[in-house]
Amino acid sequence: MDFNDILQHRRTIRRFAQKPVADNDLRSLIEAARLASSAANRQPLRYIVVRTPELVAQLLPLTAWAARVAPRRTPCLGESAPTAFLAVTAPSDAHPEWTQADAGAAIQSIEFAAVNCGLGCCWIGALQRDKIAEVLQLPPGRKLLYLIAVGYPAETPCHEDAPSPDQIGYYLDDHDRLHVPKLTVDQLATWK
Amino acid sequence: MDFNDILQHRRTIRRFAQKPVADNDLRSLIEAARLASSAANRQPLRYIVVRTPELVAQLLPLTAWAARVAPRRTPCLGESAPTAFLAVTAPSDAHPEWTQADAGAAIQSIEFAAVNCGLGCCWIGALQRDKIAEVLQLPPGRKLLYLIAVGYPAETPCHEDAPSPDQIGYYLDDHDRLHVPKLTVDQLATWK
Repeated sequence: MDFNDILQHRRTIRRFAQKPVADNDLRSLIEAARLASSAANRQPLRYIVVRTPELVAQLLPLTAWAARVAPRRTPCLGESAPTAFLAVTAPSDAHPEWTQADAGAAIQSIEFAAVNCGLGCCWIGALQRDKIAEVLQLPPGRKLLYLIAVGYPAETPCHEDAPSPDQIGYYLDDHDRLHVPKLTVDQLATWK
Repeated sequence: MDFNDILQHRRTIRRFAQKPVADNDLRSLIEAARLASSAANRQPLRYIVVRTPELVAQLLPLTAWAARVAPRRTPCLGESAPTAFLAVTAPSDAHPEWTQADAGAAIQSIEFAAVNCGLGCCWIGALQRDKIAEVLQLPPGRKLLYLIAVGYPAETPCHEDAPSPDQIGYYLDDHDRLHVPKLTVDQLATWK
């Protein structure tokens, strides 16, 4: 798929079709993470691919979804839930800022690769990390950074130009479509 | 350009052709940053696009390049230097970890968009930040996170599978080509 199409159409997905994701597609997402930028090429991140219905069901209640669009975009098991999760982990003693930058790069790459496979993602930071670590039997010496919910989109969110830099709250319109205001290039950049 | 081609061919570039980058292409890079993921859609990052030869020349000595491949991949002004820089800035009081994750996502998106325009990038974290802030007249209340060097590539680095998780040092071969060992999908992921 053309990169510009991916860039323009990718948005966070919070409502999913109840259709499993093929392992090969999940592999493509890890391939995208592997080829992302990594500070000094240290590659500290590791991934746990969760795609059995039992484990997905165990993880879902340990995640929190955007309060701004609740309850309409709070996934329900068997109806609108993701069908896979990727857990992004790092060494417990990893440099917090560099590791976050690496995670951001890897997750952005995963998100683009997902659109390329017809999939959608939600990058989730509001997590019951200790419980998730237990469910996933996270090896000692590693910590959970994020979960990425993955599945086939059952919504078509769009972005629009933010009217001003302080009007950036996303919202559902009367047709239940999510709108995400994004600052414009002119609002974001100065030129020298 | 197809996303998979971008993903497979994108690598950090440290040797550039001495050809200016059109403002329109630099705009595409900011467009890619604007559409990247941002935690809670807060969009705290701002960008300074530097493309005048005078300012690029002032910034270059305030950046440090990979010691592993010095001096062959330490850009020289007028020979192999980038022809533009993007400065990535954040509010001084921004949450350090979330902001780094946002920066990682935005920079990864910029890097893909660069390949899509025939450009190459180097994401630089080793910076004389105070001096750069002075040169760029960074507004009060904002801090510099990173510079991204931008230009037309004058090298063709490649990635290869890392033989083992501790053999990840990148290197120049006898033909002066950069090789970047990347962990494989099987080394990076466990499946559940």
